[in-house]
Amino acid sequence: MDLGAIVGLLFGLGLLAMGVMSTEGGRLDQFGSLGSVLVTVGGSVCAVMVHFPLRDIASVPRLVWNVIRPRSWNVPALIADFRRYADIARRNGILALEAVVPEIVDPFMRRGIQLAVDGTDPRVVEDLMRTDLQQMVMRHDRGIRILKALAAYSPGFGMIGTLLGLVILLQNLRDPNSIGPAMGLAIITTLYGAVMAYLVFGPVAEKLTILSHEEERVREMAIRGVMGLQSGDNPAVLEQKLMVYVAPGVRVLEPRA
Amino acid sequence: MDLGAIVGLLFGLGLLAMGVMSTEGGRLDQFGSLGSVLVTVGGSVCAVMVHFPLRDIASVPRLVWNVIRPRSWNVPALIADFRRYADIARRNGILALEAVVPEIVDPFMRRGIQLAVDGTDPRVVEDLMRTDLQQMVMRHDRGIRILKALAAYSPGFGMIGTLLGLVILLQNLRDPNSIGPAMGLAIITTLYGAVMAYLVFGPVAEKLTILSHEEERVREMAIRGVMGLQSGDNPAVLEQKLMVYVAPGVRVLEPRA
Amino acid sequence: MDLGAIVGLLFGLGLLAMGVMSTEGGRLDQFGSLGSVLVTVGGSVCAVMVHFPLRDIASVPRLVWNVIRPRSWNVPALIADFRRYADIARRNGILALEAVVPEIVDPFMRRGIQLAVDGTDPRVVEDLMRTDLQQMVMRHDRGIRILKALAAYSPGFGMIGTLLGLVILLQNLRDPNSIGPAMGLAIITTLYGAVMAYLVFGPVAEKLTILSHEEERVREMAIRGVMGLQSGDNPAVLEQKLMVYVAPGVRVLEPRA
Amino acid sequence: MDLGAIVGLLFGLGLLAMGVMSTEGGRLDQFGSLGSVLVTVGGSVCAVMVHFPLRDIASVPRLVWNVIRPRSWNVPALIADFRRYADIARRNGILALEAVVPEIVDPFMRRGIQLAVDGTDPRVVEDLMRTDLQQMVMRHDRGIRILKALAAYSPGFGMIGTLLGLVILLQNLRDPNSIGPAMGLAIITTLYGAVMAYLVFGPVAEKLTILSHEEERVREMAIRGVMGLQSGDNPAVLEQKLMVYVAPGVRVLEPRA
Amino acid sequence: MDLGAIVGLLFGLGLLAMGVMSTEGGRLDQFGSLGSVLVTVGGSVCAVMVHFPLRDIASVPRLVWNVIRPRSWNVPALIADFRRYADIARRNGILALEAVVPEIVDPFMRRGIQLAVDGTDPRVVEDLMRTDLQQMVMRHDRGIRILKALAAYSPGFGMIGTLLGLVILLQNLRDPNSIGPAMGLAIITTLYGAVMAYLVFGPVAEKLTILSHEEERVREMAIRGVMGLQSGDNPAVLEQKLMVYVAPGVRVLEPRA
Repeated sequence: MDLGAIVGLLFGLGLLAMGVMSTEGGRLDQFGSLGSVLVTVGGSVCAVMVHFPLRDIASVPRLVWNVIRPRSWNVPALIADFRRYADIARRNGILALEAVVPEIVDPFMRRGIQLAVDGTDPRVVEDLMRTDLQQMVMRHDRGIRILKALAAYSPGFGMIGTLLGLVILLQNLRDPNSIGPAMGLAIITTLYGAVMAYLVFGPVAEKLTILSHEEERVREMAIRGVMGLQSGDNPAVLEQKLMVYVAPGVRVLEPRA
Repeated sequence: MDLGAIVGLLFGLGLLAMGVMSTEGGRLDQFGSLGSVLVTVGGSVCAVMVHFPLRDIASVPRLVWNVIRPRSWNVPALIADFRRYADIARRNGILALEAVVPEIVDPFMRRGIQLAVDGTDPRVVEDLMRTDLQQMVMRHDRGIRILKALAAYSPGFGMIGTLLGLVILLQNLRDPNSIGPAMGLAIITTLYGAVMAYLVFGPVAEKLTILSHEEERVREMAIRGVMGLQSGDNPAVLEQKLMVYVAPGVRVLEPRA
Repeated sequence: MDLGAIVGLLFGLGLLAMGVMSTEGGRLDQFGSLGSVLVTVGGSVCAVMVHFPLRDIASVPRLVWNVIRPRSWNVPALIADFRRYADIARRNGILALEAVVPEIVDPFMRRGIQLAVDGTDPRVVEDLMRTDLQQMVMRHDRGIRILKALAAYSPGFGMIGTLLGLVILLQNLRDPNSIGPAMGLAIITTLYGAVMAYLVFGPVAEKLTILSHEEERVREMAIRGVMGLQSGDNPAVLEQKLMVYVAPGVRVLEPRA
Repeated sequence: MDLGAIVGLLFGLGLLAMGVMSTEGGRLDQFGSLGSVLVTVGGSVCAVMVHFPLRDIASVPRLVWNVIRPRSWNVPALIADFRRYADIARRNGILALEAVVPEIVDPFMRRGIQLAVDGTDPRVVEDLMRTDLQQMVMRHDRGIRILKALAAYSPGFGMIGTLLGLVILLQNLRDPNSIGPAMGLAIITTLYGAVMAYLVFGPVAEKLTILSHEEERVREMAIRGVMGLQSGDNPAVLEQKLMVYVAPGVRVLEPRA
Repeated sequence: MDLGAIVGLLFGLGLLAMGVMSTEGGRLDQFGSLGSVLVTVGGSVCAVMVHFPLRDIASVPRLVWNVIRPRSWNVPALIADFRRYADIARRNGILALEAVVPEIVDPFMRRGIQLAVDGTDPRVVEDLMRTDLQQMVMRHDRGIRILKALAAYSPGFGMIGTLLGLVILLQNLRDPNSIGPAMGLAIITTLYGAVMAYLVFGPVAEKLTILSHEEERVREMAIRGVMGLQSGDNPAVLEQKLMVYVAPGVRVLEPRA
């Protein structure tokens, strides 16, 4: 679970609520407004529907789920696994890896090793794995661009809501008692737009960019690992090759003769 | 029909209307203003006339029609067609494709195959098709830039309208009853400018960019297909070549020996 | 005459005037203010004087004249001319072009052909013509950057004028009758700045960029044409070479064996 | 100690305080507000938690400490040291540097020379040192990006706080005495956001970028120095090589035959 | 003297003053405010002290002096000088230039020719001159970046001053007579920030960029000239080589066989 994102979002909203309640006369129920939700959230989603193809928009919820439950990669463990597989392949031939395939959790790595076991031409294996990886990167990228568009459109629709509210307000100026609350209502849309941009869609899109880069890196290590298994690499050599994918801070600690 | 764009635009405007009507004292007739249309829409169009050559501006309506009625490309069906043509050409010679030309719907593809049937030098065929494609891309690009300029100018003219309104208002302050409505009127131009930028011209320009990239990709597949027909490619080989233009997600499902 | 620019500017200002007059209480004489012109126009021009060398600023009026009276290029006619010259040069030798030089309207083309007739080394001719062309592009570019700077500075000085006005206003609050008109005056500078940026300097700079690109393209065709005359190109071959400078849409219509 | 940063921060805050106190009716206690701190500082930190991985955020305090206590590099002294080491290595062999290792203050340089003394393969030494350097640069870069994000988010949360305050204010308009102070409170959040962006996080991030570039440069000199020791460079030649890392102004003063 | 910059700055401030005085109720003494200077000018300078190393900031005044008293380069005269030196060197040997050195005004050129007279290896001469030039470019560049930072920070501190003023104002609302003047005072800081950015630091930084490019070009010509003297170039050939540094407009007028 991406603790930072969850805690940041919940704490962020909590701090805004505390800020409201610590102010004299501030109550949370002053900030709920159906009309403001319609204009700000609804308007931004509609602009995104005009902007992007529907099939790309449909993939966003699954992508956002990655922020709530991101895969965590134990890269040293994966490298140890590859070393073990290389050991098996060297002793008993690559076909002996058949027994090992079901225990692999990650479907990308499992499919790659299965293809190697099946005796597929290494160039075809690499091509298939790279195509898969490229497809993942493009899918993530499209989703991230939609979230960034939401972050860009929401302040705009917040402002549109405020302008709608101001026009209504100014047409009803004769009733002085209604000015204050109506003005407050108009401002709530700008507030919603700013919170959506600065606390939700903007930072979430950035976190997804970072997570996607990490996943891409791990998958590239897996491709190189499968390539090494097929070319019959010595386990120690394969381990050495994959070590470059470990964060530098960790790698330096390993003694290298 | 690009459902997302139509639904997004109509729903977007509808949500704004609902936001207005859900607010106490809000009525839609408060938002119609001929003067505001003149300044915001008219002013932006005039700035675009200063900015771009008239012949480019004249091509925008046809381009926007593409958002309402975009071509939809059934790429796998097109590839199946090319496989069939390659089959005919191999068995009965490329001249036998003459019978097939009238059934081709897309004029770009039809002209290409007609040229091949006529025995035109393959390099000339490719050159003519590429020129055509380049011309289409440039035409789309010029139109898209005009729409983006409209999205950039409209908030500016919205602000100009508001400033015009404010000056008038402040010169007539002695009549307190006219302040509210006049102020509302002034704000309507900024509202128009923001809706034009955030809901209409901005997202439509982005959708057109995406549609133009898709069309370019399909036409590049057609060029490669016609080239393959002329060089007498084996139907299976030609199909393989064209498969790279299918989205990766689909392609991976096909087994490739 | 660049119809779009003239019509856009005049119609744009006209629409703003109509917007004012269609508003209750709006009169055009409310928008004239000597102080606002001094601050907005004068201030922007002074900032540009600090920013750019005086010799570059002096070239702007002539450049802007190009928007009002741009050269229009009949590229197919120029190509037909070059074909005719190539014909004369092939039959009677390049010296025979001497008779043709005085009829050439464009001084750039005329000088190039004169140099060819004088028997100047082709590399020197090309070098001189390219230097001339480069000089023109740089001169245009410097002027365009000044217009873009004016478009960037004018909203700033509009804001400065408004701040000046607000300070004066707030120091004289005791006289309530003067608030409205003085406030209106303060806002006029921002209005001037916005109109200068969004309707005048911004779009004019962009139109000049487009016109400059067109002129550069025609001159490059002329250089290639003169080169062809000197190397004794066959008229048909020369025409073919110059055809690539015609817009693709036109070119495709020509049948090419 | 980075005098400029310390003096700039303290003087900057002091000048703001003096500006307040020199204004009639201004008192510093008007600018303390717990709610504003919660929304502006807390909100920005929460957005950064959503944006970046927690492990990167944890490294920021140590990085900021570098602004308060940056290492100062006496590059000419380091070059003199390397010249001395080269002298020792040439006379008594590289093993004689063993005695010199404990006196080296900088751990990066010390480790490099220790590796050289241990007879490690020069390519391995360079690889290890470069990895270490790259790791430092990436660590700094991640921290700097977090500070820049804080500078970007803080005005946003300042605005959010102001909107929260305005809504509360407008809902309590009936109590006219509370308007002024509450409005002041609302504005304090925007003030906090602007000070955080313009005086603290923005400039500190920029100073760290400059300090990081300097440190990278010194470390690259150290790598080249250790390489020179291992390849048995003549002391004068090694000094010459390292001189290119001295700022040009200093270098030119040295006469070079 | 850079007439444009001086006239632009003085006229710019004068026009603002005229704008104030042409407005009813406007007096220049309304715009002086010690507190505003402290916050806007002082705050921006403090932010720059946090941002840049002190040694870079110390070089700014001398750089700005260049705008007030820029060197003016008579490039054709310099080329004529080099032609004369080449003539002397060809007739009497390069040592004969010794007599000419003291008359050279520009220290950069003088040192280069002195080095040539001293018989220094041409590669060393070029290296020393290039190092000097690079050092000058870097020094200018650092100073220009500081001025651009001042232009970027000053509107921020203008806004901070306005927010400080607004908070004070709103805490003292009970005294209605003090509202207007205090509000005016608050706005003065934003005014100062805008004038600093749009009339002073922004355009001055841009003018310095242009002046620095010109000086770099002249110095590159000098390097090439000294190289030509050392390689014993024919005076006419050397003149030809240096002519490429003359602005194209001038060069074309020279007939070139």
